[in-house]
Amino acid sequence: METTITTSGAQAGARRKILLIWAHPRSDSLTARVVAGVSQAATAQGLEVEELDLYRSGFDPVLREDDEPQWSNAEQVHSAQATALARSLADFEHIVVVFPVWWYAVPAMLKGYIDRVWNYGLVYGGGKRLPVSSIRWVALVGGAQAKFEAHRWDAQMAMLLNEGIAAYCGVADSSVTFLYNTIAFEEATDDIALHHAALIRQASALVAGLA
Amino acid sequence: METTITTSGAQAGARRKILLIWAHPRSDSLTARVVAGVSQAATAQGLEVEELDLYRSGFDPVLREDDEPQWSNAEQVHSAQATALARSLADFEHIVVVFPVWWYAVPAMLKGYIDRVWNYGLVYGGGKRLPVSSIRWVALVGGAQAKFEAHRWDAQMAMLLNEGIAAYCGVADSSVTFLYNTIAFEEATDDIALHHAALIRQASALVAGLA
Repeated sequence: METTITTSGAQAGARRKILLIWAHPRSDSLTARVVAGVSQAATAQGLEVEELDLYRSGFDPVLREDDEPQWSNAEQVHSAQATALARSLADFEHIVVVFPVWWYAVPAMLKGYIDRVWNYGLVYGGGKRLPVSSIRWVALVGGAQAKFEAHRWDAQMAMLLNEGIAAYCGVADSSVTFLYNTIAFEEATDDIALHHAALIRQASALVAGLA
Repeated sequence: METTITTSGAQAGARRKILLIWAHPRSDSLTARVVAGVSQAATAQGLEVEELDLYRSGFDPVLREDDEPQWSNAEQVHSAQATALARSLADFEHIVVVFPVWWYAVPAMLKGYIDRVWNYGLVYGGGKRLPVSSIRWVALVGGAQAKFEAHRWDAQMAMLLNEGIAAYCGVADSSVTFLYNTIAFEEATDDIALHHAALIRQASALVAGLA
């Protein structure tokens, strides 16, 4: 199945700069609004943005036999979808990944993207690496910051995403921004709309470092 | 879509005992052989086993809008597939989950099972809990034990699976068995067939504690 990458930004024909990968079942979710905020902030700084909306682009998160690594063959032929998505990464300088935290981890849809596309023989192994200079993860956490940090879920997720995944694929410049208390059930919020707007600003601010 | 649970064991009509959930793209994989070994060991001890083979049962790992938690409504109506799989858990005393470790975590297929079925309103929230007395995770690790443990991936995975997930769903008796060096590329193995046979025995031994 073909996947669709949506382009925005003024400089048509210019080199692709930021790939904005995201995963949420609803296109009107807070996750989607964070994506829109990051995209607008990047465009305002003259960066070009492309979105990979995993839920609405026809992406299949299930790694099947053709994407199972052949550890002795870094030149194996992978599925067409995984191959195309891996090759498209050459157009970008930065990757920003936006997702809701489910069970202290990425949703299955995003895990499937990492399983299939950031795979041996595609972005690591045989001298390959992820061809970007930085990765920024934006993780929306339903619960409260104090409780999340008390259990060190933030440190655990950062270790996995930065060291376990990004650095393993050759990208040392990787960091996670946590947006907390999105559901506001563990910690009261005076005005949920204001709180969400502040979270969108928090996420949007991270693109300043990418300009 | 309907999912198929395959029953084995001599005591037809007896209470279901062990649900064996597993995820691997190949039905002739080492993961599949571990599943068969665990199943045979359990049957030999008079336990009944049912398999939920996520890759070949029609399970869809993508959490869509109907399975998105309504945090203020623990009685929400979920998708038919997630609802049926959650209800089927009432038939079991133990759950055994077998999977390959991809990126220090479960494959997308299994993450989707947890996202969708072990969900708010189905197995936790509103006084609900996972209706089993124990969960055993069997994690097949391609790399070497020493390297995995040096980075504390074992502790991180155990924390997530036991504390973050099982205990959160009300099952305090949860533990992870790691089967190491399945690919034998980080650590040489004299005889890979013997090594794999030993791993299958290691996994099969855990059912002794469930009899």
